[in-house]
Amino acid sequence: MAGMIKPISNVYDQLRRLPGLGSKTALRLAYHVIDMDTADVERLAATLIAAKQQIHLCSRCFNFTDKDLCEVCADTQRDQGLICVVEEPQDVLAMERTRGYKGVYHVLHGVLSPLDGVGPHDLKIKELLQRLQQGGIREVILATNSDVEGEATATYLLQLLEPLHVIVSRIAHGLPVGGDLEYADEVTLAKALENRRRLSE
Amino acid sequence: MAGMIKPISNVYDQLRRLPGLGSKTALRLAYHVIDMDTADVERLAATLIAAKQQIHLCSRCFNFTDKDLCEVCADTQRDQGLICVVEEPQDVLAMERTRGYKGVYHVLHGVLSPLDGVGPHDLKIKELLQRLQQGGIREVILATNSDVEGEATATYLLQLLEPLHVIVSRIAHGLPVGGDLEYADEVTLAKALENRRRLSE
Repeated sequence: MAGMIKPISNVYDQLRRLPGLGSKTALRLAYHVIDMDTADVERLAATLIAAKQQIHLCSRCFNFTDKDLCEVCADTQRDQGLICVVEEPQDVLAMERTRGYKGVYHVLHGVLSPLDGVGPHDLKIKELLQRLQQGGIREVILATNSDVEGEATATYLLQLLEPLHVIVSRIAHGLPVGGDLEYADEVTLAKALENRRRLSE
Repeated sequence: MAGMIKPISNVYDQLRRLPGLGSKTALRLAYHVIDMDTADVERLAATLIAAKQQIHLCSRCFNFTDKDLCEVCADTQRDQGLICVVEEPQDVLAMERTRGYKGVYHVLHGVLSPLDGVGPHDLKIKELLQRLQQGGIREVILATNSDVEGEATATYLLQLLEPLHVIVSRIAHGLPVGGDLEYADEVTLAKALENRRRLSE
């Protein structure tokens, strides 16, 4: 940006690439970083790197974790026969905030989106089918978002799952259509979970 | 935050402390960091630290710089007899974006705010008076914000500067009252500069 010296514009350029940060916010943050104590900047930088280094995917459900199994999969109190399929790890967090769900998860890491070149092989769909083939799964709740890609992904999964003799349900609408699961309030989300519709016969 | 594993909640906690980042944005960014390439996270972290290490205050005007004098003070094409007094380094950037100002700056690094315990000694006011005593200054433009503290600081500076036989002017209103200089658009700011009122007789 014109008139900005290099070390600050470097920070600005890096921040601008993050999602949801407009140019004004990125600018304000870049200048704030210069005003921070050196120790605080170093702590922020170290925290970012530590998180990136320590976090990987749960070997069962593909949620973020710093262990082999995530906290939900490792919890023997959770109903391992009930799987909620979500698009992204942050959707697990949104579901957990309802405090009403006692099953486990499966994180797809995306949705089917032919326009963006995202097909079934780019998502953790094969891994979901493998979990079902290992047995013990009673019901799969499809909790992809209610936008076009989310609905198409749910429909696609229904076709794959129905022959496997498992109950397939869809999280209830009640969420604002076109909205992101991540931004729903807890009450709406808890309600939507409670009213899930069974899709398979 | 409940349900979030430690390395991610560490990132979230650090981001939440930054100004202008709400909890939803901080959460989205924390998860985005995990999704980024390791190299990109390391580059972001290194850029933050580098900026903090390389940036200090210009020995003349107290703008941010990575040299002894900032780019504006070092520019022999600029009118060194015309000083624009601003609250923060980001206000210099806003002024520079107008491309209409050919003088130099003096950054106070705050405003008088008795409620927050900020008095004249906490700002670069003594240093402004020293610049004037060295001579060669024709006019001082007070461009503090138009909120209560900004106006009070301008009034205080006028009282100090008037006896020094220098023209003291105030940036023209036309900026939204109560608004931040940093967020003004270039045209409004250029107009406000052009219409500055002389305060001293």
